[in-house]
Amino acid sequence: MTRALTTIGFDADDTLWHNERVFRLTQDRFAGLLRDHADADHLMDRLLAAERRNLGHYGYGVKGFVLSMIETALEVTAHRVPGEIIAELMEAGREMLSHPIDLLPHVHETLGTLSASHRVIVITKGDLLDQERKIAQSGLGDLFAGVEIVSEKTAAIYEDIFDRLGDGAARAMMVGNSMRSDVRPAIEAGGWGVYVPHALTWDLEQADPPTSPRYHEIPDLSALPALIGQIET
Amino acid sequence: MTRALTTIGFDADDTLWHNERVFRLTQDRFAGLLRDHADADHLMDRLLAAERRNLGHYGYGVKGFVLSMIETALEVTAHRVPGEIIAELMEAGREMLSHPIDLLPHVHETLGTLSASHRVIVITKGDLLDQERKIAQSGLGDLFAGVEIVSEKTAAIYEDIFDRLGDGAARAMMVGNSMRSDVRPAIEAGGWGVYVPHALTWDLEQADPPTSPRYHEIPDLSALPALIGQIET
Repeated sequence: MTRALTTIGFDADDTLWHNERVFRLTQDRFAGLLRDHADADHLMDRLLAAERRNLGHYGYGVKGFVLSMIETALEVTAHRVPGEIIAELMEAGREMLSHPIDLLPHVHETLGTLSASHRVIVITKGDLLDQERKIAQSGLGDLFAGVEIVSEKTAAIYEDIFDRLGDGAARAMMVGNSMRSDVRPAIEAGGWGVYVPHALTWDLEQADPPTSPRYHEIPDLSALPALIGQIET
Repeated sequence: MTRALTTIGFDADDTLWHNERVFRLTQDRFAGLLRDHADADHLMDRLLAAERRNLGHYGYGVKGFVLSMIETALEVTAHRVPGEIIAELMEAGREMLSHPIDLLPHVHETLGTLSASHRVIVITKGDLLDQERKIAQSGLGDLFAGVEIVSEKTAAIYEDIFDRLGDGAARAMMVGNSMRSDVRPAIEAGGWGVYVPHALTWDLEQADPPTSPRYHEIPDLSALPALIGQIET
């Protein structure tokens, strides 16, 4: 009998472990450092604009985020930002790159259950070395049949990954907290897309939910095995 | 008949196209910007020390290099570096990330020849998005049976790649300009290692040549098909 679903891809940041809150803490620190030069709302607007503008150059991840903070600090101070503040931003970046991993609820048992019956893979964006570090420190590595760190999450990328590591996108599911990067393109590729909202999600990852019978939303990962059971019957 | 060699891995930067010279031009610009604060030799020593210190945080690539330049500028000026200079370093980084690709001699015909008879793959370190951009712009993409962008080039990494994409390291060859990253670990994994020196090679990539019958050095890629012919007879 051919199984309907053989391969389950998981996003990593804010799906398996907390991540965005480390960015938010760093942004708060950034706003504090520059409070004499710009009010916090304006600063966050300029930072988001810099991140958006730089995405095609830097891609995703902490290093590009630090460079965008420095660029924004230069911009809002007309280049008069003190060197001490730049040094603090660099230090904040290094701290982000060694931040301990804090798993989200139900991650370990859900991946343990599913990896016994399905090919479980992780598909994530970000800095190559940093994502590898986080996977290693998560203690989840042995549960994954594959790890793909990609520069962008498009339907074509999901097709390629599920062809190489699974039985094609039609028999695959992607699970994550980004409607734009995890859910919509996986469904566009022909797979299932499962949205697991996280309280904090970066503005650039927001999108409308798709209208597809292959779209599902669950409150947290503990609901995933039952959802998969339904799909397979 | 079992073929002795089925899979050939190529390093990308300074093996397929020029790269280090773009870093050297940027370093010259860096030295010029800071000439009132530090002499060039001292500045380059401090920059190399910063790159070495940051490698475990940032990994390889342009973004980490820019962050290390900024850190060095702060260091040699006791945090008094003008914002205009930081802005120029950021701009230099963006220019590096859009620098046009200039292939090295004999690359296109050598890869064309070998890809007809062998599995040709590219194995490179650096920023994920930037390395993908360069491969796309090189016009060589169709000649590759696989592309692996990795955070470090160790014997274990080569074993994994040649197992997944080839017939194991014992039947694979790695070709590149870094004795430390391309040649030595590929031979340690059980494969052939072919050193193709480039006039400019980063200090952190230097190492002694291995003593192994599987080690070869060629002046440029035009000599590679003949070397492979010898190995296979």
